[in-house]
Amino acid sequence: MSEVRSGPELVVTPDGLTNRTGRYEKRLADLDGLFADAGAFAARLAQEADRVIYHVDEFRPSEAAGDLITGISTLSPGKVGDEFHMTRGHIHAQHDRTEIYHCLAGHGLMLMETLDGQTVVTELRPGVIAYVPPVHIHRSVNVGDTDLVTVFCYPADAGQDYGIIARAGGMRHLAVDDAGEWRLKENPNYVAR
Amino acid sequence: MSEVRSGPELVVTPDGLTNRTGRYEKRLADLDGLFADAGAFAARLAQEADRVIYHVDEFRPSEAAGDLITGISTLSPGKVGDEFHMTRGHIHAQHDRTEIYHCLAGHGLMLMETLDGQTVVTELRPGVIAYVPPVHIHRSVNVGDTDLVTVFCYPADAGQDYGIIARAGGMRHLAVDDAGEWRLKENPNYVAR
Repeated sequence: MSEVRSGPELVVTPDGLTNRTGRYEKRLADLDGLFADAGAFAARLAQEADRVIYHVDEFRPSEAAGDLITGISTLSPGKVGDEFHMTRGHIHAQHDRTEIYHCLAGHGLMLMETLDGQTVVTELRPGVIAYVPPVHIHRSVNVGDTDLVTVFCYPADAGQDYGIIARAGGMRHLAVDDAGEWRLKENPNYVAR
Repeated sequence: MSEVRSGPELVVTPDGLTNRTGRYEKRLADLDGLFADAGAFAARLAQEADRVIYHVDEFRPSEAAGDLITGISTLSPGKVGDEFHMTRGHIHAQHDRTEIYHCLAGHGLMLMETLDGQTVVTELRPGVIAYVPPVHIHRSVNVGDTDLVTVFCYPADAGQDYGIIARAGGMRHLAVDDAGEWRLKENPNYVAR
């Protein structure tokens, strides 16, 4: 019989993705400047600067146009002041590249924003697929009590611009805890582009 | 407060994908010529020509380069002769476009083949992500007793060439039932490209 090869064994496990090509972790100390309440951040930083807030396992076969990067993002629950744990967020360096996030566990938001400050939000529950359209800044927010786990897929040539949020003083809306429910409120530090 | 919009509500349910932009179904009669055992196919066709063998729900926001199509494929269990239910299979019209399949339920194979007849296979179980590399013909096969359900994602400008398999007399390997276990065997009708 002619030769048969096996494809890569990519399996979603509680620890992440098997046979990933990379993993990065973001600890609390890495998220300096992300949360609106600087005092609350400093207080938590004194206690648990090294705590991993989220980690991302990826399978990146190449960075060629037409190829895809997939992986798993795991974002822990918690707050800084009244603001929920979130990822740094980015826009794709190639602005027209879109992204898919399929929620496997937890309760969260895909918080998106156009360049002219229009907010778009998709609430994530297990089974929900969030679609990030072209030219949308996006970040994940964990508004629940357990890990928010999503499988993502995006074009391999997309690239990331992580500075776009900081340059505007943050995203236009903050995702905050309001008596046990999530709510979006205007970010007082936001500066229109 | 400034306006906040909601993204599309794409939810994976037992019925498929909510707010899909399209669905197609393939009934047994649509799969004429796909299976190697023509006699076994004719016998089943006489009984259940209209039976849906698989259906695909998709969310296709555009066909632009950089955009993504996602959706759910549901492939029923069963056999034609000793050959398991499978999808027609295709190669992307733009050959370098890749694809991701994330298995949610069932037991299957992502059966892949290069243009020079090298077979690559990924066994699908819940939690497995199959990666279809550039320039690989690919089809799903259900080797289990329940529906094989996968979430897929591929570049919106990929396109499909469904004729490539038929032009070679089928894929090089058939996925068959061998005393209750799946096995690949050489397809006697295969003609090298």
